Amino acid sequence: MKAALQAYVDRTNAGDAAGLVALFAVDATIEDPVGTPPKIGEEIAAWFRDSVAFGTRLRPVTEIRGSHGAAAALVFEVEFTPPGGRATRIRSVDICTFDDAGKITSLKAYWGPDDVEEIA
Amino acid sequence: MKAALQAYVDRTNAGDAAGLVALFAVDATIEDPVGTPPKIGEEIAAWFRDSVAFGTRLRPVTEIRGSHGAAAALVFEVEFTPPGGRATRIRSVDICTFDDAGKITSLKAYWGPDDVEEIA
Repeated sequence: MKAALQAYVDRTNAGDAAGLVALFAVDATIEDPVGTPPKIGEEIAAWFRDSVAFGTRLRPVTEIRGSHGAAAALVFEVEFTPPGGRATRIRSVDICTFDDAGKITSLKAYWGPDDVEEIA
Repeated sequence: MKAALQAYVDRTNAGDAAGLVALFAVDATIEDPVGTPPKIGEEIAAWFRDSVAFGTRLRPVTEIRGSHGAAAALVFEVEFTPPGGRATRIRSVDICTFDDAGKITSLKAYWGPDDVEEIA
C-alpha cells in the first residue's frame, strides 16, 4: 500500500494520468476534499487529466503511514496552476483504502479552506 | 476542529488525562490503530490514563489539516515508554470527526507495524 502511494506521488509528478488511473479499482471513489461529492469512474479519469494539465506537483512532508488494516495515509503539499488562475498550494492528508489486488478503492483528501494559499 | 486537535496535543503533553477525555463526545470511538477493535466509553478513559502513565509526548510534524466537512487530520510522531518496556516512537496520522458541539466523535489512527521503532 505504501508502494502504491509512492507511485501515486511519482506518477503525479511525471504527469502520467493513465498511470494514476491504473492505481485505482474500477469502482473506486475519490472524495477530494472530504465534505464534497465523491468522484467515480470517468470523473476520476478527467480529474487526473486536469491534474496533469495544471502541472500538479506533490511533495510528501513525512513518511507514508500504514495501518493494521487495508488503509494507508499520504501527507503532502501539492502545487498546481489552473488555467487562467494563480499558482496554488494545498496542504492535504490523503487516506486511501485498498482491495486485495492492491488497487485503491477509496481516496479521501483532508484539507480545508485555510489549508490553501496562492503562491504566485 | 483544529483548535480541538491542538488541545489534544497540548493536553497529552501536559499529562492531562481528564482533559483529553473531555475533548470527546460521550459515545465517541477510538480506533488506534486502524484495523483493531474500536474503544468506547470507559475504555477511552483507561486508554488516556495509560497514555499519561507512559509519559506520552506528541510532536506534530506538519500543520493540522481541516476538511470541507466535520473532520480534521493531525500528523505527528508520538513517544512513550510502557511499564517495563522500552521507549517507543510511532509515526501516525489521526483522522477525527466532530459533532456540532466541537467534541470528537471518532478518532482513527493510521500507523502500521513498520511505523513503530524502539528508540532507547
